[in-house]
Amino acid sequence: MVEGYVPSGIPGVDKLLAEKGIPSGHTILISGGPGSGKTTFAIQFLYIGATQHNESGVYVTLDEEPGDIRKNMLKYGWDLQKLEDEKKLVFINVSPVRVTPSETGLIQIGMKEFRLIKLLEAIKQGVKEVDARRVVVDPITIFTLQYPDEVERIYAMRDLLRDLRKTDCTNMLISELRGTGWEREHQFEEYLTQGVILLRTFLKDGRLVRVFQVEKMRGLAIDNQPRPYEISAKGIEVYPSATVYK
Amino acid sequence: MVEGYVPSGIPGVDKLLAEKGIPSGHTILISGGPGSGKTTFAIQFLYIGATQHNESGVYVTLDEEPGDIRKNMLKYGWDLQKLEDEKKLVFINVSPVRVTPSETGLIQIGMKEFRLIKLLEAIKQGVKEVDARRVVVDPITIFTLQYPDEVERIYAMRDLLRDLRKTDCTNMLISELRGTGWEREHQFEEYLTQGVILLRTFLKDGRLVRVFQVEKMRGLAIDNQPRPYEISAKGIEVYPSATVYK
Amino acid sequence: MVEGYVPSGIPGVDKLLAEKGIPSGHTILISGGPGSGKTTFAIQFLYIGATQHNESGVYVTLDEEPGDIRKNMLKYGWDLQKLEDEKKLVFINVSPVRVTPSETGLIQIGMKEFRLIKLLEAIKQGVKEVDARRVVVDPITIFTLQYPDEVERIYAMRDLLRDLRKTDCTNMLISELRGTGWEREHQFEEYLTQGVILLRTFLKDGRLVRVFQVEKMRGLAIDNQPRPYEISAKGIEVYPSATVYK
Amino acid sequence: MVEGYVPSGIPGVDKLLAEKGIPSGHTILISGGPGSGKTTFAIQFLYIGATQHNESGVYVTLDEEPGDIRKNMLKYGWDLQKLEDEKKLVFINVSPVRVTPSETGLIQIGMKEFRLIKLLEAIKQGVKEVDARRVVVDPITIFTLQYPDEVERIYAMRDLLRDLRKTDCTNMLISELRGTGWEREHQFEEYLTQGVILLRTFLKDGRLVRVFQVEKMRGLAIDNQPRPYEISAKGIEVYPSATVYK
Amino acid sequence: MVEGYVPSGIPGVDKLLAEKGIPSGHTILISGGPGSGKTTFAIQFLYIGATQHNESGVYVTLDEEPGDIRKNMLKYGWDLQKLEDEKKLVFINVSPVRVTPSETGLIQIGMKEFRLIKLLEAIKQGVKEVDARRVVVDPITIFTLQYPDEVERIYAMRDLLRDLRKTDCTNMLISELRGTGWEREHQFEEYLTQGVILLRTFLKDGRLVRVFQVEKMRGLAIDNQPRPYEISAKGIEVYPSATVYK
Amino acid sequence: MVEGYVPSGIPGVDKLLAEKGIPSGHTILISGGPGSGKTTFAIQFLYIGATQHNESGVYVTLDEEPGDIRKNMLKYGWDLQKLEDEKKLVFINVSPVRVTPSETGLIQIGMKEFRLIKLLEAIKQGVKEVDARRVVVDPITIFTLQYPDEVERIYAMRDLLRDLRKTDCTNMLISELRGTGWEREHQFEEYLTQGVILLRTFLKDGRLVRVFQVEKMRGLAIDNQPRPYEISAKGIEVYPSATVYK
Repeated sequence: MVEGYVPSGIPGVDKLLAEKGIPSGHTILISGGPGSGKTTFAIQFLYIGATQHNESGVYVTLDEEPGDIRKNMLKYGWDLQKLEDEKKLVFINVSPVRVTPSETGLIQIGMKEFRLIKLLEAIKQGVKEVDARRVVVDPITIFTLQYPDEVERIYAMRDLLRDLRKTDCTNMLISELRGTGWEREHQFEEYLTQGVILLRTFLKDGRLVRVFQVEKMRGLAIDNQPRPYEISAKGIEVYPSATVYK
Repeated sequence: MVEGYVPSGIPGVDKLLAEKGIPSGHTILISGGPGSGKTTFAIQFLYIGATQHNESGVYVTLDEEPGDIRKNMLKYGWDLQKLEDEKKLVFINVSPVRVTPSETGLIQIGMKEFRLIKLLEAIKQGVKEVDARRVVVDPITIFTLQYPDEVERIYAMRDLLRDLRKTDCTNMLISELRGTGWEREHQFEEYLTQGVILLRTFLKDGRLVRVFQVEKMRGLAIDNQPRPYEISAKGIEVYPSATVYK
Repeated sequence: MVEGYVPSGIPGVDKLLAEKGIPSGHTILISGGPGSGKTTFAIQFLYIGATQHNESGVYVTLDEEPGDIRKNMLKYGWDLQKLEDEKKLVFINVSPVRVTPSETGLIQIGMKEFRLIKLLEAIKQGVKEVDARRVVVDPITIFTLQYPDEVERIYAMRDLLRDLRKTDCTNMLISELRGTGWEREHQFEEYLTQGVILLRTFLKDGRLVRVFQVEKMRGLAIDNQPRPYEISAKGIEVYPSATVYK
Repeated sequence: MVEGYVPSGIPGVDKLLAEKGIPSGHTILISGGPGSGKTTFAIQFLYIGATQHNESGVYVTLDEEPGDIRKNMLKYGWDLQKLEDEKKLVFINVSPVRVTPSETGLIQIGMKEFRLIKLLEAIKQGVKEVDARRVVVDPITIFTLQYPDEVERIYAMRDLLRDLRKTDCTNMLISELRGTGWEREHQFEEYLTQGVILLRTFLKDGRLVRVFQVEKMRGLAIDNQPRPYEISAKGIEVYPSATVYK
Repeated sequence: MVEGYVPSGIPGVDKLLAEKGIPSGHTILISGGPGSGKTTFAIQFLYIGATQHNESGVYVTLDEEPGDIRKNMLKYGWDLQKLEDEKKLVFINVSPVRVTPSETGLIQIGMKEFRLIKLLEAIKQGVKEVDARRVVVDPITIFTLQYPDEVERIYAMRDLLRDLRKTDCTNMLISELRGTGWEREHQFEEYLTQGVILLRTFLKDGRLVRVFQVEKMRGLAIDNQPRPYEISAKGIEVYPSATVYK
Repeated sequence: MVEGYVPSGIPGVDKLLAEKGIPSGHTILISGGPGSGKTTFAIQFLYIGATQHNESGVYVTLDEEPGDIRKNMLKYGWDLQKLEDEKKLVFINVSPVRVTPSETGLIQIGMKEFRLIKLLEAIKQGVKEVDARRVVVDPITIFTLQYPDEVERIYAMRDLLRDLRKTDCTNMLISELRGTGWEREHQFEEYLTQGVILLRTFLKDGRLVRVFQVEKMRGLAIDNQPRPYEISAKGIEVYPSATVYK
């Protein structure tokens, strides 16, 4: 078992986490809509870990290509390639589509066999490469969707969480939120992970407001109030003392 | 049949229960969202039982590992390991996943056969070990999900409840609430169990308020009004005279 | 065909029923959520019948055990055992689970064959035993759930209603309400039975208010307005002149 | 083709129907919730036809027994038996369950074969018996439910409507409304029938108000506004000049 | 390809259509609830075309019988029979039920084979008979419902639209709207057709208001605001400058 | 990888895109209801590209015929035929229905085999023909609907997106929005594409307001506020400084 806390270093966030950070070795869920900054938040977590806390990171991408992420993050002034060269960050691309139809003349090979083991192997490979302390899987949605039965899906997620524990890393799983309203159905992942952070958007006085919420963080006396956040030129910034609604 | 009442000892709760507590030998449902303090509430029930009422407890966990629970509960000053050493508490880990894929090279063994009997055996084993008077099963959701047919699910839950009665213990079943709104569909477990306590969160004047409600408690003249509660450094505390909405 | 009316005797209720009561020989549905007092209401109907109107009653329980009901009802001062000894009340336990897994080492015997006939036999047996005039079936939900096809379910309920008529008793079927909102889907049972009483709970000025409503009562000029009710030390009490909403 | 209009004679209703009534030979749908007075409305239509307009009526019941209807309608002072004796009214009981399980020891015979033809034969038999001009089928729901496929259901209803036309009678089909809200899904029957009358209940200033609405009546310039109605000692009475909402 | 515009001639409508009308050769969808005047609107379109613009019309009916439509339209003073005699209008009855059960002793012949080709043949036959420039299909719903798979349904509708183009007529497809609320799911037909007109009803200050809206009209700078309309003795009348909500 | 940004040139839009435009080489989703101007927006993007930025464009149409689009766009003064003649624009018609039933006497050939490869071939053919820098696929809905399984659908879309990247063009995929409310379910395409623009309509003070929103644009510090837009004689115009709600 791992002791202590991993400061996120993201402006405003650790204040909501009892001034401490994410409990070391825990796996937390980052859930948000399109354009909510989930990837920015996760990269920021790894970037700060590598540059300020001497903790290497693994970014397992199941969707976006590493080259795109590198390019997109430059707008925040984060030179990921440099971190990679210094062995402080590694991208593991387990995007399940490999065979391009137009190259082979074939419809994609069914990737039904891409499942738990491949994902775990990818994570372990990354952790070993840079001796990582922080891991991100982005997004977890395409992994869980492959288990059509809900019970199987829960078991697969539990197995993944159990093996993530053994890496001794602190982990973030990115999840795609389907609904846009305040009232919604909880996703089963919210119960299985040890922490849940929500990145959402609501209307207030005719404007959209980005809303950050630590819904759950086992082992910590959190501030679970919804708080405004922004995606600025410096990345995600949360305002831990501001109120979202008047 | 068991007579009398089991005081929960949790601040503010027994006041809502006719100043008495949970009817002895009854099984009640604790239903709440992620981060609502369900596990804290249940552990608090066992901890107070063991330390103030000389009643030993069994904690049957189908999800979180005992080590994590021990660690997380330290923030409230509850030394569970000490209770375990004194035979006043026992953790029974019936988490259905045993075989780690990365160790064996195999996808998990389907746990479809893990069902009623194994759960009952686990409970009985725990009750016998510490001569328990209080039992918690956390969460019941993963147990009921395994019965895809609703009628089978109801029968399985009824059987479980019937056998729980024979232990002469007072029992809490933890249930994961899916919806987040005030209006919702009742879950069938709410009808089968002898008591239902809801731990929810609602917006009030722009802030989230934690809301405790005794929805049902057979054999008791309860206060069923929604009441605010907090998760503080001392655990769950309910304010039985406060109103949630103005 | 039976003539006349059966006064419920429950404080405030008969006033909503044209000062008369339930039409004799009719079968009515009592539908409510968990903790709404459905069982209390039904037992109260039988208790008043036995003690004030010299009408014996049958309580067919498909869920709770008679022992529990006897115990729980003592809080209202109702000594059901005494009525049973005087042959003014009889409990018929047709709870479909008989074989306890832990005793036999077997998973429960599927009770698919438990259906209409067994339920009818149980009712008739009870009626005969105490020469009953009032019958309660609690809850009907587990009976109807066994018919997965909606048309079959309607036919089964119609057959049950038809045979209940032949007993010449006045009958109450207890139904579990799923939704918690004011707007809801009507259940098919509401159309098939001759009367419907709803026991619900709504928020008013920040407090939960229990709301009693006679939705339908064939052959009677009812007051169908929602009226507040309470579950006090004397059982259910309805306030037939009070308004629920301002 | 039939010319002219059939006055309903029900207080307030014909005023909404261009002071005329239901177009002669048309089939209209009466849709309402439990306790909304659908049966009362339909019987009133037949009673007034028989006693004031010298038009005999057929009441085809698929649910309630004629004896119950006769008894229940006495509270309005309507002596249906007398009309039957005078050959001005006939009840046709096509309730699909005939074999009582408790008598034969058998589970009911599936009534899947009970369908269109039997219903049509029943109607024609009734029309012939009393030389009827008005026909009621109560309720149509159990008939349409037997066609699980929506297209088949639509065809069955169309066939029924087509044959009803040939009787030259003016017809009412009673339909059970599932939802309780103002916003709802239209039922396909509303498109197929030539007129639709809705009997609903809404909250206004804390009280339930019964609301009558002619949603559609082909060939007539109707008043389609929602109007209050009551079920009094004289039957249904609509207030065609009153507004439901302030 | 056809050039120009077909004025609807219906009071107030062309004003919303850039003072022009429906683009010639286009197929538009008229979607509304029961009693919303869909058929009246479509007949009015044909009637004005025949009497004021010398454009003959075809009315393909899949539901109502021509005799009924002729009769119902007389209330607006529209003598359709006269137009038919002058070869300015023709009814094509492709109602899929032909065999009356009571005549043949048989349940209806499944009309699964009634599909695209028969509908197209019917339309072409009508167009040829009166050299039509305007075509109405009422309703399209029963046609699309026969394709249970959504993709097949879309293809069938596309094929129909493609063939309708070849007739060089301007076409209206009548569609039955299921929901009654302002917020709703768009139907796939709204995307496939070149124009969409909605006929709906909403509550305003306690009264139902009929609301006309041109949701879409390819090739035209439309006024897409909701506008009140009435069904008066002269047919449909839209108030293109009035606002529906205050 | 492509560097830089592609200005949309559409009035008001680039201001929301950090004064830059769409990141070059990205694929973005344009999602809107019927009549929301999706096609106008996409054509405008190609037209401005061809006439002001010397970038040729490909318009892949899966629904509307090129002739219709040419005609409809003339109302904005856009002479597409001229652009086609100058090899600055090409229409690729991959509308999956080719065989007209009425010509061949056959029901359409199932187009199940029309899938990814054919769509990619069509796109590449167009790009090659005019050496295109901008590509539009309108609509993507009929393509994704052909994959009934959600995981397959996601894979197909990912493959399409991957191959679109290789064209080095900047791409717009048109998507049909089903719901009309502010709160809705996100579509999976919103997560897979690199940008999302929503074209919606809401009620404000009794009038419909067209609302433009850049929900997401990877690699850009966007203004994600909802902004009013109009479809005027010059095409789409967005008001990037105006607020939609007061």
